[in-house]
Amino acid sequence: MKQVIVANQALNLPRGKLAAQVAHAAIGAFLAAHADAPAAWLRVGMPKIVVGVAGEADLLSLREAAARVGVPSFLVQDAGRTVLLPGTITCLGLGPAPVELMDTLTGELKLL
Amino acid sequence: MKQVIVANQALNLPRGKLAAQVAHAAIGAFLAAHADAPAAWLRVGMPKIVVGVAGEADLLSLREAAARVGVPSFLVQDAGRTVLLPGTITCLGLGPAPVELMDTLTGELKLL
Repeated sequence: MKQVIVANQALNLPRGKLAAQVAHAAIGAFLAAHADAPAAWLRVGMPKIVVGVAGEADLLSLREAAARVGVPSFLVQDAGRTVLLPGTITCLGLGPAPVELMDTLTGELKLL
Repeated sequence: MKQVIVANQALNLPRGKLAAQVAHAAIGAFLAAHADAPAAWLRVGMPKIVVGVAGEADLLSLREAAARVGVPSFLVQDAGRTVLLPGTITCLGLGPAPVELMDTLTGELKLL
């Protein structure tokens, strides 16, 4: 089991802001998971990686691809109180789901 | 309610690695919380910020201070498979807990 958080690199967020958005996506996707996935993932130490895509369109199409194969996802739209415009899509949390399934979705994406 | 994730700035982690460690701390502290805190925090949109401290000793003393006032915490020690030595303490997740209480613990720390 693993989780992959996909960040919108077009925004070039400051590192603390990026980290907070990634954490938001990770918790959201964790809560969206069902059946035995969360417990199985916790048992193996919650493995997670952060990768990047060029922009918002990539995040939206990844979310659709995840829905088609039953991988839980959570799209983060910033509340816009600090550095971003309200509604800006900052990242997408995917999983926890089996590693092989996650790799079909995100295996080609570069580590951030 | 809010959550504060405190990062060990001595490590100067790459931004993707930092984000993954912060997400790990956020989920760990969330799962360590009890009673109504998690639900109340989810209702208000999971507010969270990321701050920094100079090193590991600060994280350990913050964890003790949190325990004394009943704030849930989760210390992240890296598995050491990539850029860090095994057991390196990368960050500390605190809360969710009431904003006022969180501010007594972390109000003086700088945003990352």
